[in-house]
Amino acid sequence: MTDPLPTHDDVRRAAERIRAVATVTPLIESPLLNEELGGRLLVKCEMLQRTGSFKFRGAYNRISTIPEAERKGGVVAFSSGNHAQGVAAAALMLGVKAAIVMPRDAPRLKIDNTRAFGAEVVLYDRFGESRDEIAARLSRERGSTLVKPFDDPGVISGQGTIGLEIASQTKALGTVPDAVLAGCSGGGLIAGIALGLSADLPKTTVYSVEPAGLDDMARSLESGRPEKNDPAARSICDALLAPTPGDITFAIAKQRLKGGLAVTDAEVRKAMALAFRHFKIVCEPGGAVGIAAVMTGKVPTKGRTVVVVASGGNVDPLLFQEVLATA
Amino acid sequence: MTDPLPTHDDVRRAAERIRAVATVTPLIESPLLNEELGGRLLVKCEMLQRTGSFKFRGAYNRISTIPEAERKGGVVAFSSGNHAQGVAAAALMLGVKAAIVMPRDAPRLKIDNTRAFGAEVVLYDRFGESRDEIAARLSRERGSTLVKPFDDPGVISGQGTIGLEIASQTKALGTVPDAVLAGCSGGGLIAGIALGLSADLPKTTVYSVEPAGLDDMARSLESGRPEKNDPAARSICDALLAPTPGDITFAIAKQRLKGGLAVTDAEVRKAMALAFRHFKIVCEPGGAVGIAAVMTGKVPTKGRTVVVVASGGNVDPLLFQEVLATA
Repeated sequence: MTDPLPTHDDVRRAAERIRAVATVTPLIESPLLNEELGGRLLVKCEMLQRTGSFKFRGAYNRISTIPEAERKGGVVAFSSGNHAQGVAAAALMLGVKAAIVMPRDAPRLKIDNTRAFGAEVVLYDRFGESRDEIAARLSRERGSTLVKPFDDPGVISGQGTIGLEIASQTKALGTVPDAVLAGCSGGGLIAGIALGLSADLPKTTVYSVEPAGLDDMARSLESGRPEKNDPAARSICDALLAPTPGDITFAIAKQRLKGGLAVTDAEVRKAMALAFRHFKIVCEPGGAVGIAAVMTGKVPTKGRTVVVVASGGNVDPLLFQEVLATA
Repeated sequence: MTDPLPTHDDVRRAAERIRAVATVTPLIESPLLNEELGGRLLVKCEMLQRTGSFKFRGAYNRISTIPEAERKGGVVAFSSGNHAQGVAAAALMLGVKAAIVMPRDAPRLKIDNTRAFGAEVVLYDRFGESRDEIAARLSRERGSTLVKPFDDPGVISGQGTIGLEIASQTKALGTVPDAVLAGCSGGGLIAGIALGLSADLPKTTVYSVEPAGLDDMARSLESGRPEKNDPAARSICDALLAPTPGDITFAIAKQRLKGGLAVTDAEVRKAMALAFRHFKIVCEPGGAVGIAAVMTGKVPTKGRTVVVVASGGNVDPLLFQEVLATA
């Protein structure tokens, strides 16, 4: 890899770009839960971000940096979930055409939402076609810029603005976080956050959190080289299924993360119900892994301040009902 | 009534007092919903406030103003819901003892939560005893200060800090709200908000929203004198059941509200489900009445900006499941 890694200054520049359009999401806590934990748990509410997840930050920042001459070719992205909506919404706001490559069997609501943001949805067959090839072809034919879901300096820097907000919000609360946890699929969120925190909170430890059995980042950090997940592994966390860390995200993670944690589906369900009860927020499964890791004692909380990023809230109402009924 | 009404300056002083301890709750919107409405709907997320509702603001402000010499007598309040938790949490933070008079048949969770905040819970029989008399006796015997749920200048001023935040947050979003809506029981929230908005947004119209059949404020504003609800009236909105407006709150409302709106239980349920889907927030029934009023066209939205206060999220998981399943 010859490209230089994105830096803390890139995150600062991203913050300038998204300032007028992104929500500064709140950092909240529950005194009763804090008492139970014997420490301070602060939850960064990214389900309140535009489009219901943090993905809008990275998408908007990346698309903002496309040179004027190239914008008329539009952007293309592949995603069945939060990245699709983030790119579609950001492109609409920036007046850039967007084509989103989505699996033909993606949930109807997600396809409809992506179209509602004015994006062209290009459906493909997950079992017979390659989304990468389709996206590459669109990019070639139309001159579209590919907005990758995670392994892109502009996307990582955009997600990193969460780290800047954590630094300023914990300062306003009069505390210094001992640890920051966020979910990890390809690693764009956690790598960005680590960069964002690095200037003001260099001593804060940063952990990725993944679904058990899909903890490629944790194992990669352990072994020092990119590890792959077993293709047969399954999880309720539909947003956290990337098979292996990105090149750029892993390079940053190796430098800046303390390690990787993993949580089971049952732990995630309990965390979703707890977030409902104590914080009055809607977490999708992938958005609740940080809370799950804290509540199961995977990082110590006694006498400490721990920040978790609740990264998204795009969850099916049926699943949410089931979680409330059984967790 | 000889006491002067609280003023905008009182709200500003309240904001100073609660600054370090209350959450500045976000004002969020959904681009897709805005498109549907042909206008801009902004939701003030008070379920993210400490204790899960706006009540913490008024309670903390009121208790802060108790003279040092009187604090050792503690505070007393009666409430089966959000005010109980707001007073208990605020008293704990200010080092003041709190006794909360709650009905013996109040939900176990609310009693437990109030105790968890260190308050003494004094149970009474709703059918044989008067909570006012019990609170008055405690106040007499112990020298406790009664923290009323709404008809108190300090409480109203504290709730009014939401109005100040709406003014500064809409300014930051580059918009001027045409209307602001909030739920109304005794009127502390809506009166406070009207005061809070009055300096910076004098042209913004303010509406109370009540459950249909329990719309005493709406009818009082109409007739010009305090009207009572039919004692037989029922609603899913357990936080909005006060029988008649307060003296102080009604005096403010008469001066500053455009009028009162009412919504049915079915409309509230739909609004709770919509808040889940579009905003990823948990609204209790009484917290969703503003959204319900907007979504049913009770105020115009086309080409306008409307702010609704989603005032609390303390809802039973079983009810929430039912709402998601049926609304």
